[in-house]
Amino acid sequence: MRIGVLGTGIVGMAIADRLVGLGHEVTMGSRSADNPDAAHWARSAGERAGHGTFADAAEAGELLFNCTAGTGSLDALRSAGAELVAGKILVDVANPLDFTGSMPPSLLVSNTDSLGEQIQRAFPEARVVKALNTMRCQIMVDPGRVPGAHDVFVCGDDAAAKRQVREMLTTFGWPDESIVDLGGIGSARGTEAYLLLWLRLWGALGSRDFNIHVAQAP
Amino acid sequence: MRIGVLGTGIVGMAIADRLVGLGHEVTMGSRSADNPDAAHWARSAGERAGHGTFADAAEAGELLFNCTAGTGSLDALRSAGAELVAGKILVDVANPLDFTGSMPPSLLVSNTDSLGEQIQRAFPEARVVKALNTMRCQIMVDPGRVPGAHDVFVCGDDAAAKRQVREMLTTFGWPDESIVDLGGIGSARGTEAYLLLWLRLWGALGSRDFNIHVAQAP
Repeated sequence: MRIGVLGTGIVGMAIADRLVGLGHEVTMGSRSADNPDAAHWARSAGERAGHGTFADAAEAGELLFNCTAGTGSLDALRSAGAELVAGKILVDVANPLDFTGSMPPSLLVSNTDSLGEQIQRAFPEARVVKALNTMRCQIMVDPGRVPGAHDVFVCGDDAAAKRQVREMLTTFGWPDESIVDLGGIGSARGTEAYLLLWLRLWGALGSRDFNIHVAQAP
Repeated sequence: MRIGVLGTGIVGMAIADRLVGLGHEVTMGSRSADNPDAAHWARSAGERAGHGTFADAAEAGELLFNCTAGTGSLDALRSAGAELVAGKILVDVANPLDFTGSMPPSLLVSNTDSLGEQIQRAFPEARVVKALNTMRCQIMVDPGRVPGAHDVFVCGDDAAAKRQVREMLTTFGWPDESIVDLGGIGSARGTEAYLLLWLRLWGALGSRDFNIHVAQAP
């Protein structure tokens, strides 16, 4: 499949590497066509890897991953252009973390709104699925890194889009029973707010190599 | 031990019942001395159970549980009186959920502050420990209700107070390895924000009989 990955940070790199490894053709997009990190990645990741602007990545991809910093996601997607994301599944992995204040960071949007919803509202023809934003990127693409049961959440208004993302998560290594459908994109308020607990867990455990499992009574 | 339980809702009832069952002397406090729910509870819970105003409960208890609705917790504690909570461990179980708007509820304080911190600031001589607020009350007092590993978080600035709450949680049935110390009371931002995910999980699972486990890589 042809996939556009927006963002050249560690999350974008991890997702893009995994996708290329799974046989997909990946175009990594950034603000400028000559981003050195993206260029280096494309050279080293092999013939199925390319790079360009956000618009290049959005145009090339049949499915898109938003791996930009949450505070810049709307701008990145505007730069890609609404017409290029229309009709496409947009997996939103970003969190609207504000690193300008005291640490740990807070959220720039939260509680009564979420970045996932903002993106869906700004790009009503995109099929936004919030997923994978509740863990470090190494676990996103290799859940076996953390032993035992642990879960990934998907939120979105488009059931068919969620099904397709679910299938892709399975190829990443997520067992079907570990993929928890939280409902509509409004549920992104929940998974983004969880970041505030995630940050405290990171501080308490001294490691980001963890994820949560939802244990249920029978 | 003599314990004051502030609040007469289902959380206060569950905590108070469990404490009486463990042999503690419990005074349940409410706004008025003649709250019928508290009176009924005290009659049916046996000779170790009493009831009265918030101030009565705070005076009677060597350790206090705040089980009031989060939106009324500061008022309840002011009504109890700062001098009666001073020096005492105050286990804050409340969440500042706002049920006046659209459902699921949002938080009245979140992200850059928390109810736990507000209480600690308003009552600087209380030894506030945020705990148990991340699950339904039946699980708080009977973690075995949910099979497998799952966790409870404690946050607070007073290490000795957290140790004592940890011991009490153990008597509730929490294995020591399932009690996660998140650090200072500022970490209540994390556990309270998690409620936004908890509410979405409730909606998606159709049940509140769940709790999360933090799975870690070795």
